Amino acid sequence: MSSSAPLSAETIKNFMYASTATVSMQMLKRGFRNCAVSGVRPLNPNAARLVGPAFTLRYIPSREDLDKPPSPSDPPNAQRTAIEESPAGCVLVIATESNTRSGTLGDILALRLKARGIAGVLTDGAMRDTPVIGKFDFPVYCAAAAAPPSMANLRPVEVQTPVGIRGVPVYPGDIIVADEDGAIVVPRHLADEVARDSFEQERLEKFVAIRVGQGHPITGTYPPNDETKTLYQAWIKAGEPAGG
Amino acid sequence: MSSSAPLSAETIKNFMYASTATVSMQMLKRGFRNCAVSGVRPLNPNAARLVGPAFTLRYIPSREDLDKPPSPSDPPNAQRTAIEESPAGCVLVIATESNTRSGTLGDILALRLKARGIAGVLTDGAMRDTPVIGKFDFPVYCAAAAAPPSMANLRPVEVQTPVGIRGVPVYPGDIIVADEDGAIVVPRHLADEVARDSFEQERLEKFVAIRVGQGHPITGTYPPNDETKTLYQAWIKAGEPAGG
Amino acid sequence: MSSSAPLSAETIKNFMYASTATVSMQMLKRGFRNCAVSGVRPLNPNAARLVGPAFTLRYIPSREDLDKPPSPSDPPNAQRTAIEESPAGCVLVIATESNTRSGTLGDILALRLKARGIAGVLTDGAMRDTPVIGKFDFPVYCAAAAAPPSMANLRPVEVQTPVGIRGVPVYPGDIIVADEDGAIVVPRHLADEVARDSFEQERLEKFVAIRVGQGHPITGTYPPNDETKTLYQAWIKAGEPAGG
Amino acid sequence: MSSSAPLSAETIKNFMYASTATVSMQMLKRGFRNCAVSGVRPLNPNAARLVGPAFTLRYIPSREDLDKPPSPSDPPNAQRTAIEESPAGCVLVIATESNTRSGTLGDILALRLKARGIAGVLTDGAMRDTPVIGKFDFPVYCAAAAAPPSMANLRPVEVQTPVGIRGVPVYPGDIIVADEDGAIVVPRHLADEVARDSFEQERLEKFVAIRVGQGHPITGTYPPNDETKTLYQAWIKAGEPAGG
Amino acid sequence: MSSSAPLSAETIKNFMYASTATVSMQMLKRGFRNCAVSGVRPLNPNAARLVGPAFTLRYIPSREDLDKPPSPSDPPNAQRTAIEESPAGCVLVIATESNTRSGTLGDILALRLKARGIAGVLTDGAMRDTPVIGKFDFPVYCAAAAAPPSMANLRPVEVQTPVGIRGVPVYPGDIIVADEDGAIVVPRHLADEVARDSFEQERLEKFVAIRVGQGHPITGTYPPNDETKTLYQAWIKAGEPAGG
Amino acid sequence: MSSSAPLSAETIKNFMYASTATVSMQMLKRGFRNCAVSGVRPLNPNAARLVGPAFTLRYIPSREDLDKPPSPSDPPNAQRTAIEESPAGCVLVIATESNTRSGTLGDILALRLKARGIAGVLTDGAMRDTPVIGKFDFPVYCAAAAAPPSMANLRPVEVQTPVGIRGVPVYPGDIIVADEDGAIVVPRHLADEVARDSFEQERLEKFVAIRVGQGHPITGTYPPNDETKTLYQAWIKAGEPAGG
Repeated sequence: MSSSAPLSAETIKNFMYASTATVSMQMLKRGFRNCAVSGVRPLNPNAARLVGPAFTLRYIPSREDLDKPPSPSDPPNAQRTAIEESPAGCVLVIATESNTRSGTLGDILALRLKARGIAGVLTDGAMRDTPVIGKFDFPVYCAAAAAPPSMANLRPVEVQTPVGIRGVPVYPGDIIVADEDGAIVVPRHLADEVARDSFEQERLEKFVAIRVGQGHPITGTYPPNDETKTLYQAWIKAGEPAGG
Repeated sequence: MSSSAPLSAETIKNFMYASTATVSMQMLKRGFRNCAVSGVRPLNPNAARLVGPAFTLRYIPSREDLDKPPSPSDPPNAQRTAIEESPAGCVLVIATESNTRSGTLGDILALRLKARGIAGVLTDGAMRDTPVIGKFDFPVYCAAAAAPPSMANLRPVEVQTPVGIRGVPVYPGDIIVADEDGAIVVPRHLADEVARDSFEQERLEKFVAIRVGQGHPITGTYPPNDETKTLYQAWIKAGEPAGG
Repeated sequence: MSSSAPLSAETIKNFMYASTATVSMQMLKRGFRNCAVSGVRPLNPNAARLVGPAFTLRYIPSREDLDKPPSPSDPPNAQRTAIEESPAGCVLVIATESNTRSGTLGDILALRLKARGIAGVLTDGAMRDTPVIGKFDFPVYCAAAAAPPSMANLRPVEVQTPVGIRGVPVYPGDIIVADEDGAIVVPRHLADEVARDSFEQERLEKFVAIRVGQGHPITGTYPPNDETKTLYQAWIKAGEPAGG
Repeated sequence: MSSSAPLSAETIKNFMYASTATVSMQMLKRGFRNCAVSGVRPLNPNAARLVGPAFTLRYIPSREDLDKPPSPSDPPNAQRTAIEESPAGCVLVIATESNTRSGTLGDILALRLKARGIAGVLTDGAMRDTPVIGKFDFPVYCAAAAAPPSMANLRPVEVQTPVGIRGVPVYPGDIIVADEDGAIVVPRHLADEVARDSFEQERLEKFVAIRVGQGHPITGTYPPNDETKTLYQAWIKAGEPAGG
Repeated sequence: MSSSAPLSAETIKNFMYASTATVSMQMLKRGFRNCAVSGVRPLNPNAARLVGPAFTLRYIPSREDLDKPPSPSDPPNAQRTAIEESPAGCVLVIATESNTRSGTLGDILALRLKARGIAGVLTDGAMRDTPVIGKFDFPVYCAAAAAPPSMANLRPVEVQTPVGIRGVPVYPGDIIVADEDGAIVVPRHLADEVARDSFEQERLEKFVAIRVGQGHPITGTYPPNDETKTLYQAWIKAGEPAGG
Repeated sequence: MSSSAPLSAETIKNFMYASTATVSMQMLKRGFRNCAVSGVRPLNPNAARLVGPAFTLRYIPSREDLDKPPSPSDPPNAQRTAIEESPAGCVLVIATESNTRSGTLGDILALRLKARGIAGVLTDGAMRDTPVIGKFDFPVYCAAAAAPPSMANLRPVEVQTPVGIRGVPVYPGDIIVADEDGAIVVPRHLADEVARDSFEQERLEKFVAIRVGQGHPITGTYPPNDETKTLYQAWIKAGEPAGG
């Protein structure tokens, strides 16, 4: 399957089932130690789960003579392109070099993204209008809140180039999986297998958690020994969901 | 109108209607790029809106031989002045050079400020007793929580001098407008016009958000073109509130 | 009483009654200015109160050839010792040199600690599976959330040696007292007296808060003059709880 | 004159005569408050003066499966383009988002740049082989020294796009002027006038310094009053250099 | 002796003889753990020794409408007062809340201070024109170099009030003792005794260093046992200098 | 060869010939991305080269009642053990969790280490008496200078346990190789082969630098193609040194 093909429903389902903690372990097993974006949080903890391919937007610091309050006669720019032309289902990844002095987006642009079917937003910068966005049923991960409009400190320069988000590389099309532990960046060509193995690991750990909650010690339970594995298989047969 | 006159009811109403994101844009339009205090949060998100003129209190680091646990025989100091003599309606702005190792105030002093009709508190330092203060119907913005009493790390030295709060200048009498995006510092002599224009911008953006929620694209809607402006005027006539 | 004796029920009760703000003041009165761990928060604000003796676990940075995903054949290590052999009632104190790139523990190990009767966890590092742990009735204080498993960035090396947590020394057996203002580290041999005096101070401040809420000024009320002290004694007699 | 024209010899001469402190004041007079790159130092203080148009190179964080030790069969990349195709006289500006864990360049590539007539290097990242490069007669400004090769932590992705360097925007062709106080970024279209006025200011301040060294007070000398200006004109006639 | 009396020649001589490491130990012996300013360096390592009473100058962040390039018609301000009215022999202590984006002073003002007999400068901010000032025979301690003029980011607001310098309190008149390890702030009323004991400690350690250089172990030598003390006394009699 | 055997003269010679940049590349080739300690500098740039096995000493934060100025009756502690019992030729590695508020060692203890034949010191903390130590012919790498004595902020707790230095693991016996780019930590069992390959790479790069200095392009020269390799072999035969 080509790496630019849309994500399959199974892969999305598998990633949605797994936690980022689990996806991160699957990445470590494949040799990736630098794929977790930390220091970002969902503005609405009740709308935290986020899965989708990255559409990148890159900002640089603003310049006093170039970056002014918006007017209807402004020419199109990279931010506008990202807002209106990113594909439904994607995650808008906004790279600011961790500049949190301005908001990258406010409530109106976030609402437009939501209306267009974008899966969510991930930025190493700030958002503005966070009291409003924090009530949207729309996952927005950011490093801070900041009132100033973007052009006070930031300027959009390009879309769909590779960027860094808090020290983690993000290429257009990479899969973003996020929850309250942060966001994991999965290279597109590994998405299906990482999703599948994450589902399986998550399901096993769900069973392990039940066992530990019943008072079993860690040894033998986690990682599971043969006895635990047998019990796990029986538990699956008793009705736990199958992966994609 | 003299800049030391009390804030008019209209100006307070206008600032209360607007978000800090909006006030920040109005400041940028007047050339102010460094007026937003970020990195502070309201302890009680349900008591976040804060508007009022600044009454400043400045701390320096404490010294082991001078700064000891309080006793009834302590002479008055600048903290006590700020607690008992700041005027009702003001915002107590406490500058600590971002020293968050001690709380600047605890629940008892915060309660006294509330009882005296102070509008709220803004500090670049920490607060203590935050589990209690976080339940007050009283806006307190700070950078952190810290258990130690102020004299463990801080000493009050003066009130009503200009201070810096996280890199933003605050002069006594400047208007503080705060919400969960942070706090904006508006020079006193600009307060009325910034408040008026903020009201107008906020009302327009409220309409724009309705339009975007209905599926209209950003172009033509935000900034609004003539058609959108006409629709906006009709919407106002249909009942939106008038500014001060 | 020997400093290695179990904490008395009275001392635990007294610490549970007092806030960390109050305990911190009692420590300052004894000359301790560096006993407050700030920058840590409870994952579940509804399960924040934490009191118990420290059981320490120290991590260093991981090394690519030594630290790999877990397998059932792994030899025991210091983390496993801490999870399975720390005594009920203790606080597991995990020192990472503030390395928050990996979680120190996830939901399964936290659940095991809870099942074994551990009082709670305090770390200068991160936790993983925070969306799950944040719903446990189990106090876990950490500096951040991070998805990666511990071995991605951390390696456990020893238990029960003295450690530093965000600049504060913690010796095995020291008493940890924590709430949303942070954690206070009380040397074991001072625990009983600090707890007793903290109870007394807390009770007094509860009365003072009532007085201030009624509109009394700070002067004469806090610190209390003779009149306030008399009223306080009457209030106690009217039914406030006695300390341990 | 078109902004893409080569810098005139006069403009280069004027910038070489002025300090960055002086150029920065000229930028402030034109409304630019965010044009100074601080936190970078020349590796060789005896080869510090640097003037030239920016040629930009942008790095993102490296990824374990993509970024490996170099081999002769590697395809060309953006770093190679910058090393071999940047024009003589330019300043290679390397943007890393302040990632100083790897060196952006080592002694061999720096030597190649020097051999090709590049004016110098400015990066918000680190350099490696600094004991060697620090002896070159070649200005290299960086934020740190770091031994690891670039691909251990960095990946080159593109040249000649706008970048940010420690919060300052740099567009390809902007003029970089650097000394031990840091680097100033002058928009290309302002270069000639800023250079000319910087020369004039520098010459005046040279005279002012002589006067202050003779014991004259600041008032009347700096800024100069009419008497000082007259003396300055006489001093120029007596032989100080003329600007470009 | 009143604490506002000039420093005696003996006290200055004693402080000049001792290192800040030694003075810091004497302060610790008196219970002062927070008296050492770290993170500052002398611009000219060959003109590092600095002793004198503090004259304080406090800056806040600048505001776009108030702080503009200087003109001859500017009214006097606190910076000008500090430059022209601070007494000979004092140390100008400039507090900026560690704002290093602008230089607090440049070469002309530093030269004026030197001409007026000021002992030196200590700031938690930056200096500009550091390539020039670094060649002056004049001790200037700062945290960074920065090209922009002060008004780009800073505004002077007052002199001779208590300030904090990198977390250390400085009161006007406190004695500043600095070398390449940083600066120690000695309360004025303790200056004579701290200086005297520092001289004595320094002289002893000079002898101890000779002994250690001869191969003697630390035990018995440092701290000295009776035998070492006897040898030390003999060494003094043989010609080492007497303290003030 | 057992990993606890002394380093061979050849291995030491090879590491002394190579730069840390080169050693770091050899480590990357073996999969080690986190072995470089950055942010430390040699106090004496003329005594920078340092090679030797690590002897570790770990500090925690000090406590007011335990850590006081030294007296002859103090019991032995871990610092004293490290100073007097570490073996000649080792590198004393002092872990402080990057606490730079106190010096870990001063001139007398550094002199004692030098007298005992210790190879040098590496710490993530500070040193005191740096104006003196910076003149020793003795490599001391630290993150800062600080005047206060260690017990003001630090307490030694143990020797020869694994530690972290600025995020890099160091096990007792690991080989430390340092120059002005920082320090590389080489696991003991890999020391001989990493040293040998580092010698070879360094020698090749020395030749490459000559070629690049002669004007050859990077392509074909670095990495070397067959022609360059042939020329290199001839150059070796003409007299370059042989590795260990």
